[in-house]
Amino acid sequence: MGRPTIADIAERVGVSKGAVSFALNGRPGVSEATRARILQAAKEMNWRPHSAARALGGSRAEAVGLVIARPASTLGVEPFFAQLLSGLQARLSAQSVAMHLLVVEDVEAEIEVYREWASAHRVDGFIMVDPQVRDPRIDALQELEVPAVVLGGPGRHGSLSSVWADDREAMLSVVDYLAALGHRRVAHVAGLPRFRHTQRRMRALRDSVRRLGLVEAVSVPTDFSDAEGAAATRALLSRGRRPTAIVYDSDVMALAGLGVAGEMGVRVPDELSIVAFDDSVLTRVTHPAITSLSRDTFALGGQVAEVLLELIADPGRPRDLKTATPRLVVRESTAPPSRDA
Amino acid sequence: MGRPTIADIAERVGVSKGAVSFALNGRPGVSEATRARILQAAKEMNWRPHSAARALGGSRAEAVGLVIARPASTLGVEPFFAQLLSGLQARLSAQSVAMHLLVVEDVEAEIEVYREWASAHRVDGFIMVDPQVRDPRIDALQELEVPAVVLGGPGRHGSLSSVWADDREAMLSVVDYLAALGHRRVAHVAGLPRFRHTQRRMRALRDSVRRLGLVEAVSVPTDFSDAEGAAATRALLSRGRRPTAIVYDSDVMALAGLGVAGEMGVRVPDELSIVAFDDSVLTRVTHPAITSLSRDTFALGGQVAEVLLELIADPGRPRDLKTATPRLVVRESTAPPSRDA
Repeated sequence: MGRPTIADIAERVGVSKGAVSFALNGRPGVSEATRARILQAAKEMNWRPHSAARALGGSRAEAVGLVIARPASTLGVEPFFAQLLSGLQARLSAQSVAMHLLVVEDVEAEIEVYREWASAHRVDGFIMVDPQVRDPRIDALQELEVPAVVLGGPGRHGSLSSVWADDREAMLSVVDYLAALGHRRVAHVAGLPRFRHTQRRMRALRDSVRRLGLVEAVSVPTDFSDAEGAAATRALLSRGRRPTAIVYDSDVMALAGLGVAGEMGVRVPDELSIVAFDDSVLTRVTHPAITSLSRDTFALGGQVAEVLLELIADPGRPRDLKTATPRLVVRESTAPPSRDA
Repeated sequence: MGRPTIADIAERVGVSKGAVSFALNGRPGVSEATRARILQAAKEMNWRPHSAARALGGSRAEAVGLVIARPASTLGVEPFFAQLLSGLQARLSAQSVAMHLLVVEDVEAEIEVYREWASAHRVDGFIMVDPQVRDPRIDALQELEVPAVVLGGPGRHGSLSSVWADDREAMLSVVDYLAALGHRRVAHVAGLPRFRHTQRRMRALRDSVRRLGLVEAVSVPTDFSDAEGAAATRALLSRGRRPTAIVYDSDVMALAGLGVAGEMGVRVPDELSIVAFDDSVLTRVTHPAITSLSRDTFALGGQVAEVLLELIADPGRPRDLKTATPRLVVRESTAPPSRDA
């Protein structure tokens, strides 16, 4: 049972193909009675305009593109991505806009895919994640002149729109709190240093040393995996003078760090305070539950979708949306340092 | 900077549009020297065939469709979906095949989307999840004659391929184990009863009553949400004679059930054994850690993608792939019932 063609409809109604084409495209050249018969037949035969033909005519793909240059397993392991996808879909599906999703090796492959999808009209716009320092994707997307929203800031990226939270402010709030509890040796198990948000968190910690009178403030970069999060924790806790508090750039790494503390007999929070940078069910069900910077990632996904849909409807006005700064939710994994630590 | 057209190339090379079209489509009608100049110019101008035009010509969309008729928040809350997506992408991205993803209200809307995407050549095939009893999607997909794989079984669905695990066998293994521990009153906090896999699990429990000499074996249907999982647990634990063991159809609901047991002062596993039907990091980080039916959902996603890619390459041969039955991983949430329970 193939898709009905204009010829099929013409045969059924007993008119010419030209008449069917006129009727279906709302053009003159056919009587009202014939037009009604043709439209009725088209409806009964479940005829639809060919979207490839519509795309040639410049109409919408009814899809937005998300290309992620991280290992595919990230999607299943990082609650952040699952929540984000979920929030994006919640908003997009309200307008029946699909998500065109692909995981690629690296940023260069990502740019190739942007060019391919844009030239093929597969999507009406892009969501770009993990903006980097001197990111070649920004130029590539600007050249394509396709609506695009960058998740991450601060501020706009050239003519591209952005939706972002203030990572610096969030990191400062954590370090302030730890310093107020009495911590002077604070470590940071960071993400990939090529990411802007990682850079801003690292700089915020460094900038706090003098202001808060910290004795030590070290950031250890990782690839965001639980394996590297565990390894970094093991190295930090094997030092002669251990940090008394560790801030993790994701909840998955904080969970891994909590496991390493257990394995090394370091009591949390008595001997070590732990803070996670993202909040999810993971941080709430552990024992002890993990103090976290919390934000509503589902809502964030909705905001990104909203900005992109606005931009597709009105491409002339790039947006710059600063979302709420993640706020610290204190649970059981943070306490003043013990005196002998 | 728009996409270069055939006219742009013609102007640059100084030939007719017809000559460019002949050269780009590998047809005769243009000298070898001119063809070479045209191809060189097309390359320099980053020309690509319009995929809408290619679609009209019948080539591939390089995407597969996944339409989910569950609330969008499911994607962020159920580790199962995140893991599945992740495994699908890992396999698909190796061939640069994208995932076209949409969340819809119900099965009727899902069928509409199948028709729309198939007729518009937006995807080369579909992955259908959550097969139901007398599922109208099966007929709809068969009529569309597009490659489709159903995640769920047992066996094929008409001419559609399937990838499935034996839910009955898995449920029997749990009930056998609980009975061997001495449990005689077993409850089952089930998923949506319209789903085939839920039905098969409920039937497996019912069929075990006589064989294992159970005193009580009740299945309570829910919508898979943690809220209904908690409410069902509260109702079960409020009975005069409580079940001594509860099997949950997902890890999220088991987690909610563990929370309710804590809130009601019912000790796990001393007074209540808990088993989860899906395994994820959630079941491992709780205290006590939850005994679960475990399967490699990431690998399952890869298998589904593999079958669909095979089917797209060779649509004539529907597949029927039975995957490994989930196996019981015993952790700290199961024990023999206490004598006074």
